[in-house]
Amino acid sequence: MTEESLPLGYQFAGVACGIKDDPTTKDLALIVSDRDSAAVGVFTTNRVKAAPVLWCQDRLPATDVRGIVVNSGNANACTGERGRRDAQRMAQRLATALGANDSQVLVGSTGVIGHPLPIEIIESGIDSAAKRLERSSASLELAARAIMTTDTRPKLSRRTLTLAGGAVTVLGIAKGAAMIGPNMATMLSYIMTDAVAGPDLLEPVLRQAVDRSFHCISVEGHTSTNDTVLLLANGATGVAVDNEEQGLFEAAVTEVACELSRAIIDDAEGASHVITLDVRGCRTEAEARTIAKEIADSALVKTAVFGNDPNWGRIVSAAGYAGVAFEETEVSLRVNGTLLYDHGVPTPFDADAESKRMKDSRETHLELDLESGDARCRFWTSDLTHDYVHLNADYTT
Amino acid sequence: MTEESLPLGYQFAGVACGIKDDPTTKDLALIVSDRDSAAVGVFTTNRVKAAPVLWCQDRLPATDVRGIVVNSGNANACTGERGRRDAQRMAQRLATALGANDSQVLVGSTGVIGHPLPIEIIESGIDSAAKRLERSSASLELAARAIMTTDTRPKLSRRTLTLAGGAVTVLGIAKGAAMIGPNMATMLSYIMTDAVAGPDLLEPVLRQAVDRSFHCISVEGHTSTNDTVLLLANGATGVAVDNEEQGLFEAAVTEVACELSRAIIDDAEGASHVITLDVRGCRTEAEARTIAKEIADSALVKTAVFGNDPNWGRIVSAAGYAGVAFEETEVSLRVNGTLLYDHGVPTPFDADAESKRMKDSRETHLELDLESGDARCRFWTSDLTHDYVHLNADYTT
Repeated sequence: MTEESLPLGYQFAGVACGIKDDPTTKDLALIVSDRDSAAVGVFTTNRVKAAPVLWCQDRLPATDVRGIVVNSGNANACTGERGRRDAQRMAQRLATALGANDSQVLVGSTGVIGHPLPIEIIESGIDSAAKRLERSSASLELAARAIMTTDTRPKLSRRTLTLAGGAVTVLGIAKGAAMIGPNMATMLSYIMTDAVAGPDLLEPVLRQAVDRSFHCISVEGHTSTNDTVLLLANGATGVAVDNEEQGLFEAAVTEVACELSRAIIDDAEGASHVITLDVRGCRTEAEARTIAKEIADSALVKTAVFGNDPNWGRIVSAAGYAGVAFEETEVSLRVNGTLLYDHGVPTPFDADAESKRMKDSRETHLELDLESGDARCRFWTSDLTHDYVHLNADYTT
Repeated sequence: MTEESLPLGYQFAGVACGIKDDPTTKDLALIVSDRDSAAVGVFTTNRVKAAPVLWCQDRLPATDVRGIVVNSGNANACTGERGRRDAQRMAQRLATALGANDSQVLVGSTGVIGHPLPIEIIESGIDSAAKRLERSSASLELAARAIMTTDTRPKLSRRTLTLAGGAVTVLGIAKGAAMIGPNMATMLSYIMTDAVAGPDLLEPVLRQAVDRSFHCISVEGHTSTNDTVLLLANGATGVAVDNEEQGLFEAAVTEVACELSRAIIDDAEGASHVITLDVRGCRTEAEARTIAKEIADSALVKTAVFGNDPNWGRIVSAAGYAGVAFEETEVSLRVNGTLLYDHGVPTPFDADAESKRMKDSRETHLELDLESGDARCRFWTSDLTHDYVHLNADYTT
């Protein structure tokens, strides 16, 4: 990503402040806007919410956000009153560096849960990171790396968009690679634009984008205590998103969110296949998503894909218990383009050839067609492998 | 089980008719009542239902059932019109042998899905099995074996019950060991009593018993196309279940169903731990079951138990996304009796000692306490192991 391609008015930093065992691993990220920014968020629906989630929820939607501070290595979840004070201290420290109020700073944390933050070293880290803030691709990548836990690579996505008033940029970073490790939690994503847009426009845009991206991925169906997606608009271009341009803007935000979601699945711990699942012909998008999620979360489907087994029975029966009404005779299924189940009846196919095609590609495409309506959903998941079990079992707290 | 302990008026048979690859493996079971029997059933809620499920649902509740014919090795699911005709032919064949109408015979199938039944050899098998019907422990065990697929052992349970009019017996058999193998589906259970009871009494009894037993177990959360539990009461003792004795009778049926459920989990494919999960302090039993099921189906919880990791974070966060409202500060968790999480705060504990205790026992006990009410649920599940992945991935259709 070149400097010119970055959104205007944002600076980034990523440093190693010593939360993680390896003192050279980045663990603290800053995203700062040079002016007040509109901001909205979508958060975990888990009843058990981490302190930084509560901090952000109390403040959003807002119109005067100046910065985001995120640490990795410790989720500040299940940490009680102490955890809430620590989240506030993180916000205060960055606010002081920026000459802002602590209510203008948002906070994120990811990593092990149930342990208090090493708040003093984080505060020192915020001071030193604030001195390194830059509008540069290098500092953006450092920030994207500093929010990683078990991710093997940083995740970034960017779109430019030409509106009536001129060009604007949408940029996002994300972390997430399943909820693995000792007590690792969380997917986090921060999306920012230099367009002019208020919370009233941003809220439905982010909700829709998340419904079609981060809500359409699943590694093991576990909703963490820390899941957070934030969208900031600082208006640095002076180009407003008009009402009739909302769809265009929403499409760009959705594309960024989908690219980040796809990157999370592609980086899923222990995965040998990336599964793209299209569920079509449903009455509503919500029903399509419900069916897709049930298939994506099925251990039987995920082990079948790992075993390169075109097992239509497991897929169709997972759809059948999703709680969505349909007739068996209205169901058809394709695996990697081959029709295996046609209106409720299995079709003859060359199982060896289909299995070989699955084996030869990291991508598996499942298409389930109902005949109940026009709604659809695209969902991404990974297979269930020996490596997944190994990574998730062979650690202890 | 001695002859005297069997319920009166029932005969059993189990034979090998040649559905399975190994011609000596039992694959056809008969359960016959010497008189008309009241019968009710609980069936899979999957939208995709096997032909024998549809056959039974069309006939139940009933007051004149004479027999049940069950084959293993082929589930007669996703087999369309041909499958429905085959289910009827199975009923007809046994009805002919018994001098009954085909509507007096119930049908079950379990095994691979999407393949037509080898109906001619099944019909011959029914004829030869009918000649071997006996009221004996040996024939009961043959029947219990003949409904097995990937089970490693037959599953039987029995209770006697003294009512005002005298003693009655409740006897059950079951099969199920996860939905593994190429396309294996199904748990089946057949429970019979020699008490006098009509469908109006039997229906709520069976519903409650299933809610507290088969609906409280999960290996991978996959609801199959064939799941069936039948309860027959032939009245051969002449001892009626009075209205005020319904609770006593229900308790006996529930105990039989729970023992069979526990046996299914104990035989779960690839399991190294049997997990007993008590969720208490909920507003309703349904909410307790919802939370328990979410924990039991979590791949992260199941891999943690496999790894002997007392990972309270995964358990508490799985409870948190079950969709049931509670406050984090009202949650406490014990693993094998040790308090790890106390009213929303992790407690200090010796992780190595707890891990060793998990490792040294096949049994793991999880107790989650809320403070919302008095309702509770006991749930059983197994851990997620390398053997599970191996067994489910390394077959092809």
